[in-house]
Amino acid sequence: MSGTLRIVGLGPGPDCWVTPEVTAAVATATDLIGYAPYLARLTTRVGQVVHGSDNRVELDRARHALMLTAQGRKVVVVSGGDPGIFAMAAAVLEAVDAGDPAWRALDITVCPGVSAMQAAAARLGAPLGHDFCAISLSDNLKPWPLVAKRLRAAVEGDFVIALYNPASKARPDQIFEAFAILRAMKAGATPVAFARAIGRPDEAIVITTLAEADPAVVDMSTLVMIGSSETKLILRPGAPPFVYTPRGVGGVR
Amino acid sequence: MSGTLRIVGLGPGPDCWVTPEVTAAVATATDLIGYAPYLARLTTRVGQVVHGSDNRVELDRARHALMLTAQGRKVVVVSGGDPGIFAMAAAVLEAVDAGDPAWRALDITVCPGVSAMQAAAARLGAPLGHDFCAISLSDNLKPWPLVAKRLRAAVEGDFVIALYNPASKARPDQIFEAFAILRAMKAGATPVAFARAIGRPDEAIVITTLAEADPAVVDMSTLVMIGSSETKLILRPGAPPFVYTPRGVGGVR
Repeated sequence: MSGTLRIVGLGPGPDCWVTPEVTAAVATATDLIGYAPYLARLTTRVGQVVHGSDNRVELDRARHALMLTAQGRKVVVVSGGDPGIFAMAAAVLEAVDAGDPAWRALDITVCPGVSAMQAAAARLGAPLGHDFCAISLSDNLKPWPLVAKRLRAAVEGDFVIALYNPASKARPDQIFEAFAILRAMKAGATPVAFARAIGRPDEAIVITTLAEADPAVVDMSTLVMIGSSETKLILRPGAPPFVYTPRGVGGVR
Repeated sequence: MSGTLRIVGLGPGPDCWVTPEVTAAVATATDLIGYAPYLARLTTRVGQVVHGSDNRVELDRARHALMLTAQGRKVVVVSGGDPGIFAMAAAVLEAVDAGDPAWRALDITVCPGVSAMQAAAARLGAPLGHDFCAISLSDNLKPWPLVAKRLRAAVEGDFVIALYNPASKARPDQIFEAFAILRAMKAGATPVAFARAIGRPDEAIVITTLAEADPAVVDMSTLVMIGSSETKLILRPGAPPFVYTPRGVGGVR
């Protein structure tokens, strides 16, 4: 009996952003593993085993998935967004790397999804139309000086910056530290957007500038987008402005 | 009569990576506009007008789409990948910004898709599991010194790097220049992957190191992935290694 492990991304929320590959993997799974709020989005059928967990135990969840797969089950590990971007795919592979050598022979596939920065970009216009960086602000898994170094490098390279995990109840202050770094290095007029819960009923977007932005509105459901020196607004009648980064720079067309 | 403009991403190739939102937008369009090979992927119905074009005329295509939308048509502009990442969303908004002020009142929506780096990451394992940059190597639209500056900044920040548009017939040498910059700054053992045409029949993946990589194999269908100092391989029996970047750095867990 050969098990399979599919690490799938549900996207930011709505079903219209879930790929057919992910839908099919969920439909044929024997076991569904993930953070409980992600599992709650799924329609399951009789006979499927649903293993919910807390969001802070990714490695335990990964090992559990690998053990079930080794027993021949058809396991789906569910992530929000894209499992390959700050999500469960790396956690599962960490568990493979450090775990039972037999796990390396398992049938493991990652199924991509729409990540938060893409949903935010779609709502805003096209802020990621040119070179960009994605940085997780969480220092649960890395030292803050590395976060700060990456923010400075991202500014030196004049990248558009997408910040994931910008704040949580345990880390309310880092987004302020990040903004202090950005404000010391970038123009105050740089467009900034706070894109919260995109695609979900409580979706909310704030479009502002680096000088005027209030990081206090940021929470763990917020994707923060910081423009490059080229990022612009297009004002619209009766609608929020579009935020976009042109494909051309320096007069090259 | 009010027109609509949907800028949609078909993903890297297979239908299993096309979101239901995009499928629905295509099904209800009156006019489909895009680079001919992307349009060729679609199943169209009688009465839909298909406007194919060359890949190098994005702005003309964008203006055409806006004019049709202003006439009340239900227009879909088709991109490969995600339209928000080095693709048609920015081109359409450039045309809005520079064009007829009435275009700002049009109903314009971007529908995200799976981008090439996500498909490549899914096949490789989880190289984008930690902070990363995406850089287009094309200097059609920006000066090469800016590309070089961004490559250096990406190395300074120890980001994983995804290179889009790494080479074309008109630009065969830039990928060699990029590798010269990377080799001067990064360890030779850094994992490198060339992920070509992921999800399509001619999909091909090369996993190598920065020291040993041969950029001559790169073409315009290739996504180049360069590891950070933390990116690792997991060797597997009878299968290519997994490439992944752990979520933790510097012993923080």
